[in-house]
This record gives sequence, structure tokens and C-alpha cells, in this order.
Amino acid sequence: MDWSLVLDLLGTFFFAISGCLLAARRGFDIVGSLLLGSLTGLGGGVVRDVILGVPPVAFAQPLHLVPPVAAAVLVYFLSGSVERMPRTLLVFDAGGLALFCTTGTVTALNAGLNPVAAALLGVTTGVGGGLLRDVVANRDPQLFNPNDLYAVPAMLGAAAITVLWSYGLYGALTELLVAVLVFVFRLLSLRYKWRVPHASRTGDAAAY
Amino acid sequence: MDWSLVLDLLGTFFFAISGCLLAARRGFDIVGSLLLGSLTGLGGGVVRDVILGVPPVAFAQPLHLVPPVAAAVLVYFLSGSVERMPRTLLVFDAGGLALFCTTGTVTALNAGLNPVAAALLGVTTGVGGGLLRDVVANRDPQLFNPNDLYAVPAMLGAAAITVLWSYGLYGALTELLVAVLVFVFRLLSLRYKWRVPHASRTGDAAAY
Amino acid sequence: MDWSLVLDLLGTFFFAISGCLLAARRGFDIVGSLLLGSLTGLGGGVVRDVILGVPPVAFAQPLHLVPPVAAAVLVYFLSGSVERMPRTLLVFDAGGLALFCTTGTVTALNAGLNPVAAALLGVTTGVGGGLLRDVVANRDPQLFNPNDLYAVPAMLGAAAITVLWSYGLYGALTELLVAVLVFVFRLLSLRYKWRVPHASRTGDAAAY
Repeated sequence: MDWSLVLDLLGTFFFAISGCLLAARRGFDIVGSLLLGSLTGLGGGVVRDVILGVPPVAFAQPLHLVPPVAAAVLVYFLSGSVERMPRTLLVFDAGGLALFCTTGTVTALNAGLNPVAAALLGVTTGVGGGLLRDVVANRDPQLFNPNDLYAVPAMLGAAAITVLWSYGLYGALTELLVAVLVFVFRLLSLRYKWRVPHASRTGDAAAY
Repeated sequence: MDWSLVLDLLGTFFFAISGCLLAARRGFDIVGSLLLGSLTGLGGGVVRDVILGVPPVAFAQPLHLVPPVAAAVLVYFLSGSVERMPRTLLVFDAGGLALFCTTGTVTALNAGLNPVAAALLGVTTGVGGGLLRDVVANRDPQLFNPNDLYAVPAMLGAAAITVLWSYGLYGALTELLVAVLVFVFRLLSLRYKWRVPHASRTGDAAAY
Repeated sequence: MDWSLVLDLLGTFFFAISGCLLAARRGFDIVGSLLLGSLTGLGGGVVRDVILGVPPVAFAQPLHLVPPVAAAVLVYFLSGSVERMPRTLLVFDAGGLALFCTTGTVTALNAGLNPVAAALLGVTTGVGGGLLRDVVANRDPQLFNPNDLYAVPAMLGAAAITVLWSYGLYGALTELLVAVLVFVFRLLSLRYKWRVPHASRTGDAAAY
């Protein structure tokens, strides 16, 4: 079984759910939900592959279209109940972030990028789908929310994969473990409202 | 005569007009109009070609710059009169959508993509220019307007081309016919306010 | 010494500062500042390289990550004082614009693009970073501000490089001279509020 394909599809599904939930919250129709879910789930990977100069897997492997369709259907039937859990969108987004920052880094390393570039591309893959989702839905991206250290778990995950790879300690199990740790870290950061300093030592967040 | 080049330039022109009309409505200057028209007219094709990994036609063939320039000039001199027709932007947008969802699918099939991916790339090409237009103009994309089944005609057009191609029934005339049908379908959907269900069975559109 | 690499890194630094300053003004945290600075500084070049079909330098040469990191650190420690100079963001943005419209055109000409396409890609590179910055920060792009002829200096710079190149007058010194002229032109246009006509002869700017 192709383990990294499974992780890729799972990440696509998680991000797609976050896109479809945002569509539901914004009152989009079912087609808008499918499109926003697809863009969120597949966008990060397309950006990654375009930067690597390889055919985007979303187009090379039609299997990648299954998770967004499943997500749109699930949200259509279930979102009434999930909306009672206010942080659902962020939890699924965290799952996508955790899986994509690791698989993105691995894909970049496999393509021969240097470690720094691979980590950067891993972060780009991890945060790309959610950023595209928020940008096309015309809202302030979660990525820049100063009350949320959104990108930090992705950075740590990408860095961890790169270090493990450099020391020859990389494998499917390690990859899954890093993804789980990123996911847990992200949820803890939401739960305990962890912060990093503002962009300016003297700045304030009032204008956000 | 290169028939698909003609359709491509015509689609570029229609989308460019929609971009320039939005620029006029938003009070942009003539340079902003040219840029927004260019992005709307050429953006979908650039995304298509970048995903296919081929040089974007907008840069390979300078002829593609003529339609955006013509659109900016036309809107400069005529938009006072076209603004009296409130749906003008949507009609030109529909023309671009109809032509690009078909030519985009054909380009993808010619490039050897599998039918599902080709249809997906056709839809991406069709809706891409208008999405970029709305995103950079910082407004809620028409694509996600729940009172408008924007993407459905593009999906049907891309699917139709793919099916015709698979059965060996594809040709320049068929392509034009599908584009005309998509255009008519789109205008009818606007005229009679056709809808699809919301993203969530229990959702409402109030938040859009 | 690789002169065009120096200009590229300097342009990246200027644009990154503009991104970090916007992050500070919007109350983003230091990680958001680093990410917005990186996107602004590196985004235009990534778009240029993806369109050219070459590996983006931001990923091929890790050195390109130094300017965004330096920008985020500088803005963190100094932005309290720079905010007293209200046009700081626009001045740094002008520096990035001037350098990227020239280096972008040169890169495109070196890659063998025809002169029209090279000038177009130069303008795209010049305005791309700032457009991405404003789009992901969810604000009306400076590029479309009708009270500012933002893109005109970039267009003149790209055209000048193309003409000089065609007549065999291009060199590192010419490139720097054009960049300086674009920068001065841009600052003068801001200082004296130069304008171009609106997108529609009969339009007004009230709706912006």
C-alpha cells in the first residue's frame, strides 16, 4: 500500500471538510461547497507541485477528487450537528495542516530540494490550502490571526521532518508520528491560547 | 485559420470586458482597468497552462494582449452607456465562462490528461479568470454567490466536451455548439434565478 | 560578484519590509509578519519563475530567505519609530517595484521570451508581490487605487529595459539606472499626486 498516498488523501479530506464547513457557514450552495472544499483540499498540493515543476497530483490522479466530493456530501447532511461544535472547522483544518506540512516536506525532499527549501515548501503546502480558502472566501486569513499561532506547528513539523531525513531517521512511521505531534500541538495551542509576540515591539492588535 | 485560437481570443475579450467593467464600477483608473481586464482575460489560461506545465499562451503569443487592450479602450469610451444595462458584466462573464470551459477542456485533453482531470481543468480555466478578478478586487466572488449557479454551466460544458471527445465526436463545430449551449444555459439560469441546494441541509444564506 | 542576484535580494528586502510593515499595522504577530514579508518579497519572483517554467529562485537559493527574516526582525525592533513616517510602507514598496520590474524583465529576456511578453512578465513580477500582499491581507490592492498610478512606473521601467536590450545597450549599470529612475518617478508620482484618467470616461471614483 502506498502509505504517503493515504496520508495525502486524508489531509485532502480534512482540509476539504474545513472548506465545506466555511461554505456552509457563509451560506454558499452545494456547488460552492464542493468548489471551496476542492480548492482548500487540493490547492496546497497544486501549489507545491507547480513550484516543484511536476504535474499536480490533483490532476494526475483522479482519486484525489474523491475526498472533496465526500466532504461536500458529508457537510451537506451533517453540518447542522457539527455546527453545534464551534471549533470543528479549526480541528479539521489542524488535521490538514499537520498532514500537509509533513507530506509536503517529504515530497520536496524526494524531489531533491535542499533542506531549507524543502522545509519552506512543506510550510507552504501546509498553510497554502487554508490561505486560499480564506482568500477566495474574502475573509481575514486564519494564518494571520494574531490570537492564533497557526503557522508555528507547521514550521516545527516541516523542520522536524527535514532534520529526521538528514539523519537518516525518516520513514512512514516517523512521518505519521510527526503529523500527530503537529496536530496535538496545534490543538493545545488553540485550547490554551498560546501566542507569539506581535510583529512590532511597540505595536498593538487593535486594527486587525 | 486556427479555430481554437479564435475562440481563445474571443473568450479572453469577453472576460477582459467583465474585468474592465468591474474596474469602471469600482472607480479604478484606466491602467487599473487594463490590469484587471488582463488578469481576468488571461488569468484562467495562465493557471491552465501552468498546471499543464507548458508556457502560458498569454506570454508565448503576444496576440493575446490585444483583447484586454481593446476591452479597456472600449469600456473607457462606452461604459457610460453599458452601465444602463445592469447585467452587462454578467453577460460578458458568461461568454468568457462558456468559451473557456470548453477550450480549457480541449487543451487539457490534447495535452493527454485523463478525462476526469481534463474536465476539472476545464472548469478551473472557466471559473479561474472570474475568481481572480473578484479576489483581487476584494469582493465576494460571484462563483460562490448562493443565488447564482455560476459553476454549473461550466461543469456541464466541460463534461460534455469530455464525453464527445471520448466517443470521437469532437470537432471545432461541436466545441462551438457546446460553448453556445453553456452560454445560453448560463443566461437562462440568471434570467429565471435557477438555484441548487445550500451547502448544508440545515443551513441558511443569511450570512453571505 | 553576481550583480543581478544583489538587485534581486535588495528588491526582496524592500518588498519584505513593506509586507512586515503592513503586518505590524494590522496587528499580526511576528510569525504572520515573517510570512507576509516572505510572500511579498518572494511572491513576485515565484510567479515569474513558475510562468517561465524554471525552478523558483526562492526555493533554489536559500539565500533568498535572508531578506524576509531580516525584514521581520527590523520591523519588530524599529517599526514604532518608522510608523511616525506615514509613507514608509509605500517608499519600500516603491523600491521593490523599481528593482523587480527591471530584474523581472531581464530574467524574462534572458529566458528567451519575446520583447512584449518579457515586458509583461516584468510588470507582473514588479506588481505581483504587492498585489499578493494586499490580497492575502484582505484589503483593496494599492495597485488599483485610482488616486495612485502605481503600475505606470513599472510599465515604463519594463518597456525601457526591453528597448535598451533590443538596441544592445543593456548592462548592469543600465539596469541599475532604470531601477533608480523608476523609483524616483514613483516617489514623485506619490509626492505630486499624479493621476491617469478613470476606467470610464463617464465614471467616478466614489465607489472605490
